[in-house]
Amino acid sequence: MLAENSYGKSGIRLVKVIRREDGHRIRDLTVSIALEGDFEAAHVAGDNSAVLPTDTMKNTVYALARTHPVDSIESFALELSAHFLKEDGPASVARVGISERPWEPLVGGSGGPSHAFLRPGAERRVTRVARTRAGVSIESGIEDLTILKSAGSGFTGYARDRYTTLKETEDRILATAMEALWLYEPREIPWDLAARAVRSTLLETFAGHASASVQHTLHAMGQAVLDRHAEVSRIRLTMRNKHHLLVDLFPFGLENPNEIFVATEEPYGRIEATLKRE
Amino acid sequence: MLAENSYGKSGIRLVKVIRREDGHRIRDLTVSIALEGDFEAAHVAGDNSAVLPTDTMKNTVYALARTHPVDSIESFALELSAHFLKEDGPASVARVGISERPWEPLVGGSGGPSHAFLRPGAERRVTRVARTRAGVSIESGIEDLTILKSAGSGFTGYARDRYTTLKETEDRILATAMEALWLYEPREIPWDLAARAVRSTLLETFAGHASASVQHTLHAMGQAVLDRHAEVSRIRLTMRNKHHLLVDLFPFGLENPNEIFVATEEPYGRIEATLKRE
Amino acid sequence: MLAENSYGKSGIRLVKVIRREDGHRIRDLTVSIALEGDFEAAHVAGDNSAVLPTDTMKNTVYALARTHPVDSIESFALELSAHFLKEDGPASVARVGISERPWEPLVGGSGGPSHAFLRPGAERRVTRVARTRAGVSIESGIEDLTILKSAGSGFTGYARDRYTTLKETEDRILATAMEALWLYEPREIPWDLAARAVRSTLLETFAGHASASVQHTLHAMGQAVLDRHAEVSRIRLTMRNKHHLLVDLFPFGLENPNEIFVATEEPYGRIEATLKRE
Amino acid sequence: MLAENSYGKSGIRLVKVIRREDGHRIRDLTVSIALEGDFEAAHVAGDNSAVLPTDTMKNTVYALARTHPVDSIESFALELSAHFLKEDGPASVARVGISERPWEPLVGGSGGPSHAFLRPGAERRVTRVARTRAGVSIESGIEDLTILKSAGSGFTGYARDRYTTLKETEDRILATAMEALWLYEPREIPWDLAARAVRSTLLETFAGHASASVQHTLHAMGQAVLDRHAEVSRIRLTMRNKHHLLVDLFPFGLENPNEIFVATEEPYGRIEATLKRE
Repeated sequence: MLAENSYGKSGIRLVKVIRREDGHRIRDLTVSIALEGDFEAAHVAGDNSAVLPTDTMKNTVYALARTHPVDSIESFALELSAHFLKEDGPASVARVGISERPWEPLVGGSGGPSHAFLRPGAERRVTRVARTRAGVSIESGIEDLTILKSAGSGFTGYARDRYTTLKETEDRILATAMEALWLYEPREIPWDLAARAVRSTLLETFAGHASASVQHTLHAMGQAVLDRHAEVSRIRLTMRNKHHLLVDLFPFGLENPNEIFVATEEPYGRIEATLKRE
Repeated sequence: MLAENSYGKSGIRLVKVIRREDGHRIRDLTVSIALEGDFEAAHVAGDNSAVLPTDTMKNTVYALARTHPVDSIESFALELSAHFLKEDGPASVARVGISERPWEPLVGGSGGPSHAFLRPGAERRVTRVARTRAGVSIESGIEDLTILKSAGSGFTGYARDRYTTLKETEDRILATAMEALWLYEPREIPWDLAARAVRSTLLETFAGHASASVQHTLHAMGQAVLDRHAEVSRIRLTMRNKHHLLVDLFPFGLENPNEIFVATEEPYGRIEATLKRE
Repeated sequence: MLAENSYGKSGIRLVKVIRREDGHRIRDLTVSIALEGDFEAAHVAGDNSAVLPTDTMKNTVYALARTHPVDSIESFALELSAHFLKEDGPASVARVGISERPWEPLVGGSGGPSHAFLRPGAERRVTRVARTRAGVSIESGIEDLTILKSAGSGFTGYARDRYTTLKETEDRILATAMEALWLYEPREIPWDLAARAVRSTLLETFAGHASASVQHTLHAMGQAVLDRHAEVSRIRLTMRNKHHLLVDLFPFGLENPNEIFVATEEPYGRIEATLKRE
Repeated sequence: MLAENSYGKSGIRLVKVIRREDGHRIRDLTVSIALEGDFEAAHVAGDNSAVLPTDTMKNTVYALARTHPVDSIESFALELSAHFLKEDGPASVARVGISERPWEPLVGGSGGPSHAFLRPGAERRVTRVARTRAGVSIESGIEDLTILKSAGSGFTGYARDRYTTLKETEDRILATAMEALWLYEPREIPWDLAARAVRSTLLETFAGHASASVQHTLHAMGQAVLDRHAEVSRIRLTMRNKHHLLVDLFPFGLENPNEIFVATEEPYGRIEATLKRE
């Protein structure tokens, strides 16, 4: 005998960029939907006529995110739950869970409205000291510095071959979990202070850069560190790209003016470079 | 000064179903591609003309997986590396990494050719005992039993609304990380033996079932356990759907007869039900 | 032929509480040590006479953390690397890696010196909406709110049996990754504002509480939320205890006045309770 | 008003080595204990007199694992639940959860009783191909090959300094998650077959080796691969040590003849070496 049953979609990753005069705001949500009710025919007889596909649930989240202000996770969850508990549908309970990850605005060089963001707390300060009888090397840095630009980033004019389907864009989200490791000149300095200063340079450059590619921004960040911090002789930067894909809302009669994105983990671009003084 | 640099795509999840007379075979790969070479203009000047997008690298992996036998990870990596180190291209080194996860064939009730598979070792045996002064309940089971059907699974005739874009299919991959928890009648039994027997029933039913949906197969598995194991009075099943999406190879002039899939982690369907004796 | 070789200890979890007049400071480090050099006899002949155990490396990290100020990860790594590259030892390279996780001071109710801390960014805001035809329930909260008290926490007077070896303490580290889920009265409110206010109440109460146990502090936090927030009718709190064990430095001729701790992940205490209005 | 409440210990990692004439058997468990009942005084007034410490729960699991056969997770959970639901205690419900990870016996060179084990399914086959215009290198291997020896492993005669507290042992558990990467001579071979053969050599050598240290066994495994597989010119081995610590049962009036261990994740030894043909 079938007792309780439930079905739905979990792990729906949604990023909405809210574009205001005074800067952007990011809402980074993970949504789950589950329905309970009279779905016995699907279980027992393989009759799917009452089963709204979980793929449709996912589409609905993106479509409603476009028309709803998403001003809080509660208001959006209330809207979604009302949508899924249709008047005459088989579902008797609609459950919506939302989890939100915070992003903090970064101020660019100009001090203008912010279009760059930091995921607070993801990063860790690191150092790697290697000592031999000949001397010691001190390479310090930051791991998992997670940053995002919602303006000032494009990708055009790239090489193409028969397997290229990517569309050129002048306006995309650039997000990355970055590792920066810089080699210090071998002398005593106020280490914590120095690392904080390099971090500021990295963040300011990221926020202010007009990015033609990940490589372009990575290089600008490394260049700025070598320019401003005489105690650094080399810097290695690795950017693990956190792709945010524009959701196609056309099938639902909606435009998507760079507002609704799906955040993906795999596959991911990985860009590395080392800059050093000549 | 730009020293070493590298860029590419990592985490490209590829599942190829190799269809033989005597049953299917699964190759479940995670591929990474990286190029080194003369990409200084991209870094310094934002000139992308030498940069093949990492998105193209991803597409190439899926397209070549269709035409290459993928008979070993080495042979496929050699082919990919040759493709990316073009004669006249900017890359001087092409690196290809592949990691393979194993799947073992399951034998269905009929003993015929296998189209069902088990990811060995992912699962854990569990028990949850709750004792009060009134008595004791013993619920045992398996977590993360990861199984896949490459034939005998469709999804058609489902409910539709304005947000439905999913296409009906008579032949798809059904894969799940399953949790099964069954309640024992309160008496001493040979526990390890009993759990192994229930596990066999679950796997046989999964392998042999003609699946109209996840709900349909889940219910059949629970039903079989209640039918064959008198010591079980209730079973709760949760299937976390591991979606395998058919890759669109049409832009590359290739058909994809249910052979090349991308394995995704998010979002995921989640189906739960409890079956008990009347 | 043996070519390069290296051995050492990784994942050494060290928390140092630096006690100042104006409040405590936390340094939360993960240290790794690796030596390279002439260790061929150990490899080829099983002769361990040149091999300092990796367990000794771990002990050394804790002992030197007691005598060194640990004012930066670089200065501590330099000290450790000098220790391990002994004048006449077999090692020719000593590598020390340190990664630091940040903790931010929390201000208690009194506004006095801080002995409570927040791991920034670990937390996520969540909501769970369940809608039926009869109505809607809205449970909101925070997951993985990671907080630590380095003063004002003891555990004494507990029950004992033949398996009890724990020592009573009036002064320990209390750290937890907390989940708080509160049920709202069913009416529209400014959701983000309300959640921020409840979070403040939770943090203030945690920082200011004279804790006799995890249960005691958990209850005080729930009580404060019900007292101050009329829109909340019920709160469920789960604390996953993050144990910090005092390191025994006595074998090395050192006292440890609640200063050097090892942070552990497993096993962990788990305390749950629900508070509601009468 | 305090409603439901619960407290206990989770993540108690227990490995029991059952020593039989015909070889050892490993039970690798993760145990959780939770009590519900009348613990209001602890919550409200900070009165701990009814609270058995969760540390005592952990001790109890290890002590009872010594006297109980641990012939199934159900029988052991039943015993633990009976212990914690004392006749006159404050607890009204005792919950015990156990999760078991499988280990499969490995056959050594001699074909005798097995004291070596493999964690099935943890491993992944990998390859790393690097192609330049000058040629191609093919390095293949296995990641996370998780293996354990419950006999034939000691660690004695090592270097000591003032921070050494480790006790010498002629009989310990040696367990490791291993990475092996071997470089092939550059010619076409049956890749899957070759990798399976190298894997067999690694496992047989591990199972049969009289280990004086991790370095000693790692070197023997690499040596065996170079000896038996002419197509391999170099092998790099990394062993991440999975420490199993003997539990001190003396405070509970019990001996522990290398039977009850706690499996730990951090800190961990890390041993690396490269062997190549001269």
